[in-house]
Amino acid sequence: MLTKKGAATRQRIIEAAADEIRDHGAGAATLDDICRRSGTGKSQLFHYFPEGKEQLLLAVAEWEAGQVIEDQQPYLGRLTTWEAWEKWRDVVVRRYRRQGVHCPLGVLITEIGRHTPAAQAVTRQLLEQWQRQVQAGIEDMRESGDIGRDVDPVRASAALIAAIQGGVTILMSTGSADHLEAALDLYLDYLRGGVPVPG
Amino acid sequence: MLTKKGAATRQRIIEAAADEIRDHGAGAATLDDICRRSGTGKSQLFHYFPEGKEQLLLAVAEWEAGQVIEDQQPYLGRLTTWEAWEKWRDVVVRRYRRQGVHCPLGVLITEIGRHTPAAQAVTRQLLEQWQRQVQAGIEDMRESGDIGRDVDPVRASAALIAAIQGGVTILMSTGSADHLEAALDLYLDYLRGGVPVPG
Repeated sequence: MLTKKGAATRQRIIEAAADEIRDHGAGAATLDDICRRSGTGKSQLFHYFPEGKEQLLLAVAEWEAGQVIEDQQPYLGRLTTWEAWEKWRDVVVRRYRRQGVHCPLGVLITEIGRHTPAAQAVTRQLLEQWQRQVQAGIEDMRESGDIGRDVDPVRASAALIAAIQGGVTILMSTGSADHLEAALDLYLDYLRGGVPVPG
Repeated sequence: MLTKKGAATRQRIIEAAADEIRDHGAGAATLDDICRRSGTGKSQLFHYFPEGKEQLLLAVAEWEAGQVIEDQQPYLGRLTTWEAWEKWRDVVVRRYRRQGVHCPLGVLITEIGRHTPAAQAVTRQLLEQWQRQVQAGIEDMRESGDIGRDVDPVRASAALIAAIQGGVTILMSTGSADHLEAALDLYLDYLRGGVPVPG
């Protein structure tokens, strides 16, 4: 159990490492640079991360994953009106536009090793947390009658997470947010039940 | 301009390289192994790929991108009935389930360098070609009255490509096709105009 001061120091190291990695890449970021940036000594760093860089990278990945969710608040956590859904949609597009072609979390996952259990756990937890909050929003809107009872919250939230993930992946390879925006808009149309019926 | 025999030899080298990369990774695949596997000499290989491995990797990436489209035929090329859409949906899910967590094209794009113009051109062309065929299907179905006139074929095809991309990315990190299937099914519901209206 860390003291309050200990937790703050650990967090300062993590955020300094995150900045260092954003600036120079995960491979080039050295423990010396991270110590300098966070104003901590190397023995302090090894106190909090006894296994060294690998353990620190994982902590940074967990923190970056948390930021993905954090950046979407307060909207993602209370998708209880169409206004909240629209604002959340705009926040997501703006966030990923600003991020552009370089994903800090993706860099870390690649460095840790995409197929390692540790990296997969970080990715899985992020997806689950994200999807759970979308699902809660759909359930609330079903309760209030704004979303039809036949929309399955589990499958519909899974589809939305896929749509965002794909839009972001395409943005990262093309630099354009068109696919992300189209996917989000079409999805909101679907939820609203406002789909043009043939004929 | 290659002779017919020349084109066949070039293609044999590309496919041998593709197999070698699928088996051992892009980094580990050597030109010697690729020559052995394709039954060609090194001078022949350099005749077709004078710039060596880098040029060959790019040709393999283009070929793998073509395979992504090819694997979805004949359905993707003629999405003119709901039956064709359903069959195509199943082919996509089956293809990516079989592929699992290792994407041959992704490996090549990473090796060439995700942010290089050459890699981006391969990705962009694949997305455009894929999206164009989906768009043609939506346009056909609008003509025949099976899809509502208010569905925008450009935005709707962009959204679908994003949904598939995301579903596949999640499949590659979790091993589960749930997100891909949910995204495709919800999207087909949208196109059919079969979305449950609130109330």
